Amino acid sequence: MRSERLYRLLDPEASGPARAFRGVHHAMVAAGIGIMIADTEAEWRLAWRIELDIGFWIVCAFFVAEYVLRLAAAPRAPGAELRGRWRSRLEWAGSMAGVCDLVGTLPGALAIAFGPDFGSLFGFVWGFKLVRYAPGLVLLQRVISDARRALLSVLLAFCLVLLCAASLAYLIERGAQPQVFGSIPAALWWAIVTLTTTGYGDVTPLTTLGRMLAGIVMVSGILVFALWAGILATGFAEEVRRREFLRTWDLVAKVPFFHDVGAAVIADVARLLRPREYPPGAIIVRQGALGDCMYFVASGEVEVQVRPEPVVLGPGEFFGEVALLTGGVRNATIVAARQCTLLILDIVDFRELLGRQPDLARIIHKEAERRPGEAARSSEWETRRHRGPRS
Amino acid sequence: MRSERLYRLLDPEASGPARAFRGVHHAMVAAGIGIMIADTEAEWRLAWRIELDIGFWIVCAFFVAEYVLRLAAAPRAPGAELRGRWRSRLEWAGSMAGVCDLVGTLPGALAIAFGPDFGSLFGFVWGFKLVRYAPGLVLLQRVISDARRALLSVLLAFCLVLLCAASLAYLIERGAQPQVFGSIPAALWWAIVTLTTTGYGDVTPLTTLGRMLAGIVMVSGILVFALWAGILATGFAEEVRRREFLRTWDLVAKVPFFHDVGAAVIADVARLLRPREYPPGAIIVRQGALGDCMYFVASGEVEVQVRPEPVVLGPGEFFGEVALLTGGVRNATIVAARQCTLLILDIVDFRELLGRQPDLARIIHKEAERRPGEAARSSEWETRRHRGPRS
Amino acid sequence: MRSERLYRLLDPEASGPARAFRGVHHAMVAAGIGIMIADTEAEWRLAWRIELDIGFWIVCAFFVAEYVLRLAAAPRAPGAELRGRWRSRLEWAGSMAGVCDLVGTLPGALAIAFGPDFGSLFGFVWGFKLVRYAPGLVLLQRVISDARRALLSVLLAFCLVLLCAASLAYLIERGAQPQVFGSIPAALWWAIVTLTTTGYGDVTPLTTLGRMLAGIVMVSGILVFALWAGILATGFAEEVRRREFLRTWDLVAKVPFFHDVGAAVIADVARLLRPREYPPGAIIVRQGALGDCMYFVASGEVEVQVRPEPVVLGPGEFFGEVALLTGGVRNATIVAARQCTLLILDIVDFRELLGRQPDLARIIHKEAERRPGEAARSSEWETRRHRGPRS
Amino acid sequence: MRSERLYRLLDPEASGPARAFRGVHHAMVAAGIGIMIADTEAEWRLAWRIELDIGFWIVCAFFVAEYVLRLAAAPRAPGAELRGRWRSRLEWAGSMAGVCDLVGTLPGALAIAFGPDFGSLFGFVWGFKLVRYAPGLVLLQRVISDARRALLSVLLAFCLVLLCAASLAYLIERGAQPQVFGSIPAALWWAIVTLTTTGYGDVTPLTTLGRMLAGIVMVSGILVFALWAGILATGFAEEVRRREFLRTWDLVAKVPFFHDVGAAVIADVARLLRPREYPPGAIIVRQGALGDCMYFVASGEVEVQVRPEPVVLGPGEFFGEVALLTGGVRNATIVAARQCTLLILDIVDFRELLGRQPDLARIIHKEAERRPGEAARSSEWETRRHRGPRS
Repeated sequence: MRSERLYRLLDPEASGPARAFRGVHHAMVAAGIGIMIADTEAEWRLAWRIELDIGFWIVCAFFVAEYVLRLAAAPRAPGAELRGRWRSRLEWAGSMAGVCDLVGTLPGALAIAFGPDFGSLFGFVWGFKLVRYAPGLVLLQRVISDARRALLSVLLAFCLVLLCAASLAYLIERGAQPQVFGSIPAALWWAIVTLTTTGYGDVTPLTTLGRMLAGIVMVSGILVFALWAGILATGFAEEVRRREFLRTWDLVAKVPFFHDVGAAVIADVARLLRPREYPPGAIIVRQGALGDCMYFVASGEVEVQVRPEPVVLGPGEFFGEVALLTGGVRNATIVAARQCTLLILDIVDFRELLGRQPDLARIIHKEAERRPGEAARSSEWETRRHRGPRS
Repeated sequence: MRSERLYRLLDPEASGPARAFRGVHHAMVAAGIGIMIADTEAEWRLAWRIELDIGFWIVCAFFVAEYVLRLAAAPRAPGAELRGRWRSRLEWAGSMAGVCDLVGTLPGALAIAFGPDFGSLFGFVWGFKLVRYAPGLVLLQRVISDARRALLSVLLAFCLVLLCAASLAYLIERGAQPQVFGSIPAALWWAIVTLTTTGYGDVTPLTTLGRMLAGIVMVSGILVFALWAGILATGFAEEVRRREFLRTWDLVAKVPFFHDVGAAVIADVARLLRPREYPPGAIIVRQGALGDCMYFVASGEVEVQVRPEPVVLGPGEFFGEVALLTGGVRNATIVAARQCTLLILDIVDFRELLGRQPDLARIIHKEAERRPGEAARSSEWETRRHRGPRS
Repeated sequence: MRSERLYRLLDPEASGPARAFRGVHHAMVAAGIGIMIADTEAEWRLAWRIELDIGFWIVCAFFVAEYVLRLAAAPRAPGAELRGRWRSRLEWAGSMAGVCDLVGTLPGALAIAFGPDFGSLFGFVWGFKLVRYAPGLVLLQRVISDARRALLSVLLAFCLVLLCAASLAYLIERGAQPQVFGSIPAALWWAIVTLTTTGYGDVTPLTTLGRMLAGIVMVSGILVFALWAGILATGFAEEVRRREFLRTWDLVAKVPFFHDVGAAVIADVARLLRPREYPPGAIIVRQGALGDCMYFVASGEVEVQVRPEPVVLGPGEFFGEVALLTGGVRNATIVAARQCTLLILDIVDFRELLGRQPDLARIIHKEAERRPGEAARSSEWETRRHRGPRS
Repeated sequence: MRSERLYRLLDPEASGPARAFRGVHHAMVAAGIGIMIADTEAEWRLAWRIELDIGFWIVCAFFVAEYVLRLAAAPRAPGAELRGRWRSRLEWAGSMAGVCDLVGTLPGALAIAFGPDFGSLFGFVWGFKLVRYAPGLVLLQRVISDARRALLSVLLAFCLVLLCAASLAYLIERGAQPQVFGSIPAALWWAIVTLTTTGYGDVTPLTTLGRMLAGIVMVSGILVFALWAGILATGFAEEVRRREFLRTWDLVAKVPFFHDVGAAVIADVARLLRPREYPPGAIIVRQGALGDCMYFVASGEVEVQVRPEPVVLGPGEFFGEVALLTGGVRNATIVAARQCTLLILDIVDFRELLGRQPDLARIIHKEAERRPGEAARSSEWETRRHRGPRS
């Protein structure tokens, strides 16, 4: 099962040796791009010619080797035991990731064919190898792809405005400035520089009519821009909500506490909880701080530092609700006993939720009453600090 | 019924020969604009004078012919049998589309009156003939028209700021730079270039007071821009929601499965489903992939590739729910047997919906139980892959 | 009651003679601003010296007279019968509107004191007299005022970035370009031009470090801009919803039809209806067109053009629901018999609403059944056109 | 307890002497930044050398003293009586605020080490001392931190586009303009100036291919900008909702009136109320004005100016509902008797709320009936003014 092990090593999600591989990969991308940039700067090129060339060949070799190894380790889709190893390799080579990695070998291939000077010019393609490790880009890509149709409509409108602006500017300005508005392609350059409000200033209208046209073009540019912003803001809000909900649901479904409250409540709660990771030893709440959220343990364990003995809470248990119910401060410091994932319920949502879900409110109130000493101490604090800084 | 056939040929929605006509139409628009641009570039004009003129006349003739044909084929509004053919032609000629097509014959008319050199300058009007084929532009137009009032208010504010800025800049800078700030019209040019943050740099204030004014004008420009973006983002979100819902409802209403669940549920479901088209032979789900949505067949047929015999699902049937319920992977590859429209329910909405609509949940669970082998195989996969890559 | 009549004449909302006054007012504003602009253009000034001066004095006299008349007609607040006429005049003079009108007399006063050349320089203040007639600006003002705190925070962040950028640019660039980066005030000019992405180009960094700083400043500028857009978009969406709801509620409350369905339904319905005005003779729906909304008559009367006799519908009646229920086309042309206000219910919201409000659905269905001929004819049309263009 | 008193004096929230301290603090920040700017302007430096230096030393001394005092007065966290005073000082020194104040002493330290000329160059760090007093910045920081992941993804996309643009521009333009596109670092300068649509104009492409590339880069820049705006708008809307709700809840919970209506209603009401502060003597509603909101007294007292005796309303009472129910004008002027906090319920939300919460509607209607004289007078006014200006 060597290929299996190799696959796991190259997987961006895996841990341990794969993490080390990822570090080397990122360093190679940075080195490759740095070498490309340095190669074009005459001074640096003169001073470190040999070092740059050696570095370039190493980076090329690394990416070629990576491609070959990934091809060898091409994962077989589950349930596809019957299909041959070569077929799955072919599939991977044709996939997005395969093509992307193939492009990464391009500078090397060009360097062999035309010399390293030419090859290093294309080092910027290595930047795209980072995309695989940036899950946020997938989100952006999906937003843009969902809003594809609207964005393209704005682009068509943009092109129509561009064409009209260039034609009219050509008609108006060609008399006054034949050298820069002498043809529509030349006027198009002015139009795009103006419509995007970039405004280099190398070409500006001189006639009064031309300047009025320019004013209208600038305002249209702002409008186009605003349309784009509106489309993407709409799509983004939708996609973020979707993504967050999906992630939280998976965690909520694993907390035994929520099993009792029914599916309708889970959907309601999952919208409000926000997951957060804590490393071992991290202080989650600090005694005496004002409480603005409560926590559910999704995985791992936390330690409540009370006397005489610390209390350990595991998956499905919750804490921090006393300060929310009394409006007071935290009455104990709580520390992550090991790596743990907590689901955080903000005070705002806590109150909304308790108003909407009487069953949940009852469970939480009952639990808070079971911890009477804490509530008592907390309310004592409350009197002293209630009007303190909250900022 | 020749005119009827002609109408259908010219209809942007119709298929077959109309599609071919559309291709020719778009090619003519592109050719016309290309000829207009090439005509103004002295070199190209010298080299291909004859070819450009011939091309221009062909494009003109095409658009004149199109106008005449569309006029001849003017559709009679249903229920208007009593009105004459000429009356409906007159109505079409006065409509938006009729005027738009009439403008398309303008370069030809101008070319006949003043020569092709002059006529070709107005070739950019052909670009607007594409608007008919871009449904997204209708959406944008409606958003802008709904936000008309607010956008005009911002425009008035914009003009007031522009006027103040120009007057003050004239007062402040006319001493230091009489040649560029010598009158308010001249100062207006500076003001609009600055307020839109275009910043050509041909006119810049030199005095300290003038630079402070410029700073305030730039920040106001950004504010105006942001207001515009805010207005359009709001309108866009509203309009997109409207449009999507309308399209989905029409499809949901045709799926027999939803007839049983009542009108209230349909409104609820229609908000969540997203329609997508698949060409024949397209792979819809791939065996072993992780499931993140389920599908309802709105039209067409799909083929589930299971042994010993593939199963065919038609309109009203659904699939893909097993992977959602078990959290596992797809247990069969499903292919579009012919052109089909599927309604996709995302895993996020699936979970929300099942929490809210217990009747629907029961129907889907029952169906999933009827496919026991699949669930079994699926959960087997689940154990192995549950913590795998999800991107 | 002369003062009462005067008040009504000057009221921006009133009709008839007040409308004529408004036209004269707007013309005077335009003339005043035009004269101010022309006065600064040497050529025009030489050619029409006398005309411009006469025009300027007329405009000044008009605005002074307007101020005096408005002061004389100052409305007494209702319930303030006991207070004297002069007290209400004083109150008006101190109000926003009074101060605004007082400022409008400023150019005249300055012209008397220092000559018309100086007075006309301040003609731009007349532009602000239009604000009273632009209700949309009140909306914008409220959005900005509600988001005041957040906008000011962004402004503070903006100023901090500006200060840092200028200080660092001064440190970095003063060696290379002592003439343009020789002091922090000079560097501040560069910083604001860069941070707003205006980029005049009169001052640009030359050192590598300075260019890196410039890159960071530009990206910060975009971020500040985006924050501003985000804040205003949020506020705008909220305010628009508020405004629309308020206007619709007033109309819905007057429709007898909704009196029967209870307060909870009204709040629900008012969110969905959109009011629109129709002048007498306007065609509201055209026979044979596809139906995408239904209408409630809020005021005025409409005429349904059916044979043998047209039917008149008055306030509280509704129409257009048949085409929505059957998905077909309009079966009669409906024309506004006099000026009327209709509440429009979109097909999207119609469907959502009927799913949610069974009582309303029953009333509308019953009414639709009472018009059986129409439904029959409609469904006949439906068969022929159902797959037609819908754009 | 001297340290306790000191702490309260330095606390940004406290009143009285702390307010005076805050004034001095802000004046010192302004003076320090002013001195830094003046120091770099040769003329001013020459004219006021001594004054600037003395001012600089005073400002430095103030900030050093502030740091020492704050360190001495470091607050002990509640519940931490057992920990020593020094430990809490150490904790404060390591906290955000402590580091921020330490940085404020930097210009003084540098001035001692290298002379005041060098020290004053870093005066801009004092600007950051204002951050503590700007609670809005905390909000912005949280929005940015929540959207961290998405903003970084856009930044990565931005960097990739930048790198591609620079590499391609270098390939295309280095032949035509070797002096400005001679290396990739030089091309990167052009790329960032173009991608942010700043457009200084010091470097512009000259070849046709280069200009096409520039057009694409500008449009990409607008897209990046729009993505950023979308992300921040989404995050901002969420955060503002959260913050507002939290603040209002705290106030609503203190109004006895709402205790009777149950937790579910409070959550519903708190979403709609907006708190506002009134100084003593402020006019809250003016007799005869149109009513567009009602008020709940959260703290303080208001005086209803009715005859024969003014009525005083205290915490938990409400007023202004009569005008909302009848749609008429205010029947009495109401003035803040002392500093008071009112919760404002807009007419829009009032109507929505009464539709949704029948219990609340009953309480408010009953109260309004108890004030029959007012309602009668109000409805008399209503008839006369109902169609009046509402703007």
